[in-house]
Amino acid sequence: MRKSLYLKILVPLDGSEFSSKALEHACAISKTFDSQLVLIYVVDKSLPINLLDRTEYLKILRHFGKNVLKKGHDTALRNGIDSKSVLKEGNVVNEIVKFAKKENCNLIVVGNKGLGAVAKFFLGSVSSKLASSSPCSVFIVK
Amino acid sequence: MRKSLYLKILVPLDGSEFSSKALEHACAISKTFDSQLVLIYVVDKSLPINLLDRTEYLKILRHFGKNVLKKGHDTALRNGIDSKSVLKEGNVVNEIVKFAKKENCNLIVVGNKGLGAVAKFFLGSVSSKLASSSPCSVFIVK
Repeated sequence: MRKSLYLKILVPLDGSEFSSKALEHACAISKTFDSQLVLIYVVDKSLPINLLDRTEYLKILRHFGKNVLKKGHDTALRNGIDSKSVLKEGNVVNEIVKFAKKENCNLIVVGNKGLGAVAKFFLGSVSSKLASSSPCSVFIVK
Repeated sequence: MRKSLYLKILVPLDGSEFSSKALEHACAISKTFDSQLVLIYVVDKSLPINLLDRTEYLKILRHFGKNVLKKGHDTALRNGIDSKSVLKEGNVVNEIVKFAKKENCNLIVVGNKGLGAVAKFFLGSVSSKLASSSPCSVFIVK
């Protein structure tokens, strides 16, 4: 019965050391509770980009996201877990919450800070926004 | 090595169904990772009480807290875990953070809402405050 506590675990990745650490914890929990592990990268389209060409910027982010997911998948494999990867585009928190709802995830494991940390002062961190808007439990790894 | 991820897990209790659910999750994690389980109840002294006699109010809360901890200890025992109980007084978040630091806790498992939920709109919830000020990882159970 314990095993069914976390059937599906979602791990938002952003290429930061914080999300890498979150992934390590998610792997440990996933392995212990026989959970399905899903990695998600969201191409952030919510911030206005004035300095760079927007199309080029999004192209770079998509490429970066794919690499981050590939690395995450490899990390999970090294931990003996065959994860699923998902690339989304939009507002980071909204897309994660939408996916978690749609896929009935039981747990989101997220790093405390991330590449968006600079914007934290103004916008609030992704982890704290997730904690309040997520449909399921949230594990904030520090 | 996995077993050492969460050596000491702290569970703040407040007598609500949300903290009871958090405790159930904490027991599952504690059992799986061979963690020490510590239950904490904080007598909230941060709110000004005008309607009741303050001394009497605190006496009631202390009594309530002891009962909550006793019930929590029994729940843990039913899950095969011999937990430790701690009663503190002061500001709820501050006392939990102080204790987690002093006792080198690796994880705080907390309910998303609690008896302080009415004050959430004005003050921000205990769980979200913990998520930002905790020295260790925070698991918010929904």
